[in-house]
Amino acid sequence: MNPPRAVQTTAAAPAGGHYSQGVVHNGVIYVSGQLPTKPDGTRCGHLPFEEQAALALENVLAIVGAAGGSPRSVLKVTVYLVGVERWAAFNAVYAARMGDARPARAVIPVPALNHGALIELDAIAAVEPKSRD
Amino acid sequence: MNPPRAVQTTAAAPAGGHYSQGVVHNGVIYVSGQLPTKPDGTRCGHLPFEEQAALALENVLAIVGAAGGSPRSVLKVTVYLVGVERWAAFNAVYAARMGDARPARAVIPVPALNHGALIELDAIAAVEPKSRD
Amino acid sequence: MNPPRAVQTTAAAPAGGHYSQGVVHNGVIYVSGQLPTKPDGTRCGHLPFEEQAALALENVLAIVGAAGGSPRSVLKVTVYLVGVERWAAFNAVYAARMGDARPARAVIPVPALNHGALIELDAIAAVEPKSRD
Repeated sequence: MNPPRAVQTTAAAPAGGHYSQGVVHNGVIYVSGQLPTKPDGTRCGHLPFEEQAALALENVLAIVGAAGGSPRSVLKVTVYLVGVERWAAFNAVYAARMGDARPARAVIPVPALNHGALIELDAIAAVEPKSRD
Repeated sequence: MNPPRAVQTTAAAPAGGHYSQGVVHNGVIYVSGQLPTKPDGTRCGHLPFEEQAALALENVLAIVGAAGGSPRSVLKVTVYLVGVERWAAFNAVYAARMGDARPARAVIPVPALNHGALIELDAIAAVEPKSRD
Repeated sequence: MNPPRAVQTTAAAPAGGHYSQGVVHNGVIYVSGQLPTKPDGTRCGHLPFEEQAALALENVLAIVGAAGGSPRSVLKVTVYLVGVERWAAFNAVYAARMGDARPARAVIPVPALNHGALIELDAIAAVEPKSRD
């Protein structure tokens, strides 16, 4: 078995703890939970919800992209949302960005998130396996 | 890499947002979070908990079945529960339906769910890969 | 398709409901949500948080190990935490135990957990496939 391959990209928020942005194994990338944090590390839990949703989603897609995937190769997205009433606003931001891609998805309300964020997303996506994965 | 294959079946609740009921890649189906909603789209967040649990589980199993899987091919179920005190009632409904099948599982209490539901389930299951997956 | 293979080990907390400690398919193990429970079944939701975090993580790693994996083969860990303010304490315990291994990770605050626990962890890890997986 080849060891899992960590993915690191400056196009997404840097890992803020003991984890990799994403890990690839056997043609699948597992993307860490992404908050509304800019690639330069600026936390954006104070911004309007729609902007937070877009930022977190861009982080996910940048990490998937760094591993050779795309929105269409995303398999499952799990969305952790502060306030179930934000479901429709999230779905609108997500649909606009994902376009034809419709991965499996679960939206899970939570009581709070790190750094006051209103949304966190993680994902699993298919990527081209490299010969050593 | 072949693109992930979306699964769509009228035997489970229709997708109520920008997602597929399930997505298959490399012999694995990723099932979207399933609420207690009937295949005709009727939301059942008002029913007793046990009926909600059974409905959500039937949706998961119908989507797995539409991709060629079965309860025994389910790998992991994540259960989002409003009220940790409903754990035992959920476990009883689940055990009765799953029988000999004992996938990995996590039960996660949440503050609320969409449409007033008391339970949501998502899952990962093994399915026979088609030649194009 | 070979059926998923259940993993059972006395080195981790026994399954306390209708689930397996872990399930292996196609070189990947799906580990059930692990609470701070000792391998002898003693629940430890009364212990200080750091001890709870260590116990839950040891359960995950024991199940991964029983399937032939190791900390370095872990792909994704999902951490369910009662109280987002415990993030830093968790990260310290986790970093000390995981060492060079930095799987993908998501930390999700929840309102409560079973048996009064403050933390639950589940995981996906790469393992050597057996010929029958």
